[in-house]
Amino acid sequence: MTNPTDSTPDEEFLADFARLSTFGAVPGTGGVERQAGTAADGEQRRWFAELLTAHGFTVERDGVGNLFGLLEMAPGAGYVLTGSHLDSQPTAGRFDGAYGVLASAHACFRIADAWRRGERHPALNLAVVDWFNEEGSRFKPSMMGSAVFTGKLPAQQALATTDRAGVTVAEALDALHERGGFSDLPVESYAEIHIEQGRVLERDGLTIGLVEATWAARKYAFEVLGEQGHTGSTVMADRRDALLGAAMLVVAARELADRFPTGTLHTSVGELTVYPNSPVVVASKVRLLLDLRSPDAEVIAEADRMLTEAIARIETSAHVAVSRSTSHGWEVNPYQPAGVKLARAVAEDLGLSHGEVMTVAGHDSTNMKDMVPTVMLFVPSVEGISHNTAEFTSDSDLLAGLGMLTALLERLSDGELVDGAAGS
Amino acid sequence: MTNPTDSTPDEEFLADFARLSTFGAVPGTGGVERQAGTAADGEQRRWFAELLTAHGFTVERDGVGNLFGLLEMAPGAGYVLTGSHLDSQPTAGRFDGAYGVLASAHACFRIADAWRRGERHPALNLAVVDWFNEEGSRFKPSMMGSAVFTGKLPAQQALATTDRAGVTVAEALDALHERGGFSDLPVESYAEIHIEQGRVLERDGLTIGLVEATWAARKYAFEVLGEQGHTGSTVMADRRDALLGAAMLVVAARELADRFPTGTLHTSVGELTVYPNSPVVVASKVRLLLDLRSPDAEVIAEADRMLTEAIARIETSAHVAVSRSTSHGWEVNPYQPAGVKLARAVAEDLGLSHGEVMTVAGHDSTNMKDMVPTVMLFVPSVEGISHNTAEFTSDSDLLAGLGMLTALLERLSDGELVDGAAGS
Repeated sequence: MTNPTDSTPDEEFLADFARLSTFGAVPGTGGVERQAGTAADGEQRRWFAELLTAHGFTVERDGVGNLFGLLEMAPGAGYVLTGSHLDSQPTAGRFDGAYGVLASAHACFRIADAWRRGERHPALNLAVVDWFNEEGSRFKPSMMGSAVFTGKLPAQQALATTDRAGVTVAEALDALHERGGFSDLPVESYAEIHIEQGRVLERDGLTIGLVEATWAARKYAFEVLGEQGHTGSTVMADRRDALLGAAMLVVAARELADRFPTGTLHTSVGELTVYPNSPVVVASKVRLLLDLRSPDAEVIAEADRMLTEAIARIETSAHVAVSRSTSHGWEVNPYQPAGVKLARAVAEDLGLSHGEVMTVAGHDSTNMKDMVPTVMLFVPSVEGISHNTAEFTSDSDLLAGLGMLTALLERLSDGELVDGAAGS
Repeated sequence: MTNPTDSTPDEEFLADFARLSTFGAVPGTGGVERQAGTAADGEQRRWFAELLTAHGFTVERDGVGNLFGLLEMAPGAGYVLTGSHLDSQPTAGRFDGAYGVLASAHACFRIADAWRRGERHPALNLAVVDWFNEEGSRFKPSMMGSAVFTGKLPAQQALATTDRAGVTVAEALDALHERGGFSDLPVESYAEIHIEQGRVLERDGLTIGLVEATWAARKYAFEVLGEQGHTGSTVMADRRDALLGAAMLVVAARELADRFPTGTLHTSVGELTVYPNSPVVVASKVRLLLDLRSPDAEVIAEADRMLTEAIARIETSAHVAVSRSTSHGWEVNPYQPAGVKLARAVAEDLGLSHGEVMTVAGHDSTNMKDMVPTVMLFVPSVEGISHNTAEFTSDSDLLAGLGMLTALLERLSDGELVDGAAGS
């Protein structure tokens, strides 16, 4: 971390962000690889804990690896919590999650400095959080840490989850000494800032996105069952090729998106595994994960019906059996209008261009908003590129977002949204 | 192994085959899993070496794990070699390869007993072989041991080949103590018996298949390149989804087969791997192996042209780049007509129903026939099921094949095919 006497607060933030971007850096790309609970995640968490400590925050870890930095300057009062996640997808961008965590910390540092100088007086205390395993690439489901914190996922279930090598969350955290005993943080409100991972802000020339709702999502786990056979000698008509059935499903998912107006349905298959996956054996089993996402609940429902029809066609033509289970999902899910209204007022005060947006991706705030008044902010993503080392947001947008978050947290720590206004 | 004094030679064979089928047995299926160089492969190889030793054969291992049992009763003369492979695909049948190895051993035991009783006198010596890694599921390419033996694959290249966990062939063999220093076996002719893995013998009511040729094959390695993106927020039109491109290729391969008359083109994709294979990341890279097989060289050539057109369409519609390399392949490849003629004469002498067939799958004899006069025999496979735990051949067919192979080896060890007749 930099010496505060040498540089402006904005320069300090950019220097710390450059330092954070070195953990798990993928050479020559600007991107990072630091999946949850890996060595690179451990390194960045230790650095981040030191940064918090150096700024006078008390560092705590809860039982599933959520890392908190606490500043109690209103003794006995509750906390405004702010943060995001440091973990990444494999070979991903350096902004996703990490920007939000560091911006949260620096916003709190600025407010703490003002409190210490006596310029402001807190009604609520401040806490920064790095949620464990938001990405869900190594351990499923995604948004694990915030799901446990908000009581949506039992801690024991999260800790027992294994990665592909059979390592549990508990083992991965213990190896990094990142599992603690902290609990019972009295959170009154929550704020998170994140890169948009979409193109709306860029297209509309806006600096700040006021997130009003989450797209609906359905996440399905499919198992396609066929029959092993010799790829050479088995007569084509006799084949029950699970990989053919799975491939038809991947194509059908894409065709589904093309049957709705542009931008109203996103579909994808990102994960697919084949058994026995030998060049000379017709596959007997393929597992795949398929997502449908839409800003419109009726579109999701219609897409689900069409998918069911497609599955029936695939079962017949590829001579396979397809089983589907819904792993998880969510409806079109609004953030509290009072939070959006407060954020709009803050942006107007600061003279930052802004607009209401939806988020396609889930965020830890998706969990937190069901517990406390929550404000979710976006800054632009160049060309909407995300989960890719080429992900980019300009310094000026990063700093505008930091300024916006700081001003928002000042108002939240004054107690706004908490006294009866939340959720209205 | 059984005590020869207690039972008939046929009963001995069936008892030994039942014992062999216990190594790597998949419970409740009748199938096995004993990929090349695994612990189960090591166990069956040790048992097989003891069986050979108990019958007076000298056991030798060459530098790439081919296991030989030698019986020199015509000092200084060359050898008739016979065998197949004990390794299996993952969760496969118990007959594929293993039947041929054990039938070869028992045929040689019977001939050796006759020699020892003075009933017959050898012109050539006998050797049994278990070729290492015919299947190629763990280590590629397939038919590795016989390829090295026949000089088609450098031994050092075979030994340096790694499995998915990074273990080399050399390391896997050394862990089992199955790498030796044997070399320079003077082979004069070769015979192999195998289950058909097809339906021709069953359909035509024949007991013995006289293999006259191998189907042509083209084996391609494909790499489909896209671009990582967020599966939720990336606009559909912006996606460059490598898994979509790969899925379209799998479907296109199947459609290719349907554009030719039934039975003239077999196509398949058995192995496919996705990167980064995360549920929320659009895949940037998919590798897959695609095969084309046909009894007709013109069909293969035409299918190759159609595949090239399909790739161009896929590149455009899925916004991906597809690169193709030919990993290996072979033309329609005849066995020596003199060998087929000799086998026909033997079958007629024994009164076994027989017919000429082609093999779709490659076999170690595919390599051996390019070095010495070679005879390849088939016994029926029920419903053509292969590379599947449900693979089945009846005891009566197994025993008929053993009798056929024994009579054939008697004539080969008399020196037939060797004196100028081979390859005519």
